[in-house]
Amino acid sequence: MKYGIAIFPSKKLQDKVNSLRKRYDPHYALIPPHITLKTPFEIEDSKISDVIEQIKAVAKETEPIHIKVDKVSSFKPVNNVVYLKIEPKDVLTALHERLEEKCDVEDTAEYSFVPHITIGQQLSDEEHNDVLGSLKLQDFEHEELVDRFQLLYQLDNGSWTVYETFHLGKEN
Amino acid sequence: MKYGIAIFPSKKLQDKVNSLRKRYDPHYALIPPHITLKTPFEIEDSKISDVIEQIKAVAKETEPIHIKVDKVSSFKPVNNVVYLKIEPKDVLTALHERLEEKCDVEDTAEYSFVPHITIGQQLSDEEHNDVLGSLKLQDFEHEELVDRFQLLYQLDNGSWTVYETFHLGKEN
Repeated sequence: MKYGIAIFPSKKLQDKVNSLRKRYDPHYALIPPHITLKTPFEIEDSKISDVIEQIKAVAKETEPIHIKVDKVSSFKPVNNVVYLKIEPKDVLTALHERLEEKCDVEDTAEYSFVPHITIGQQLSDEEHNDVLGSLKLQDFEHEELVDRFQLLYQLDNGSWTVYETFHLGKEN
Repeated sequence: MKYGIAIFPSKKLQDKVNSLRKRYDPHYALIPPHITLKTPFEIEDSKISDVIEQIKAVAKETEPIHIKVDKVSSFKPVNNVVYLKIEPKDVLTALHERLEEKCDVEDTAEYSFVPHITIGQQLSDEEHNDVLGSLKLQDFEHEELVDRFQLLYQLDNGSWTVYETFHLGKEN
């Protein structure tokens, strides 16, 4: 099955992001607003319990992370994705890298890791520039403590179901 | 915030149910196919950790449950909901009742507990009868072992985000 690992931020931030995703993100109905920690990867059913034990170990040795929305940004020219950039990059990158390593699967990431919450994607160039321009004028100031992340699997319709919750800095 | 407690069955069963929900269930995009263990209830933020500890205790003392899809049925005339009936009722009812009790909130359930996975809802009488008639001819034979359930909260757009995973018969 195809799995992914993500942080769901607080309801407050999810609601704010969803009010925009509704218009700009075709994946709006497939998964709540999230920070991807590990891009989708295939695991055989027989190996999932081992991988979960590895992820538990990573979660246990990582302290809860105080995150902050930095600014609205875009992945253009790579693709027309508009997103909220999340700080601190280093701590999240370290967690991302430990998960890549422990999941014991080939790295499926094509680009360097940029912690973010997607607001819009698959936008035309014109839409992209309009959305980015107008959102840059809005205030997205927000900070919170992240104490958990989720392992999800993808259904045939493209939506994601949570399989397991992992707590940062705790026995899981 | 508004919370709910549900079991997500295996991907195989979710995919089968989603292929029908897509046409018949307006909540298709709000939550994956599920067996509701506790109908939505409000909890103040300050009380959620205590409630989670109570739910952990219930999960720990409940053994994994071997469930079986019994047949296609309907809540008509109460409402035009078509669903897969899940057996064994007694074990699931016991779990439901322990959760009601331990969540320490007033019982919000208006009807007696019937473990089920919704296929269609808000159907007109004609649609309801057509869908029920045609699904009764289909084979939904399926069984599996349920070893976990999820605590979810509802976002402003009506969709649900998982907050916590609980394992049956284990320290959580």
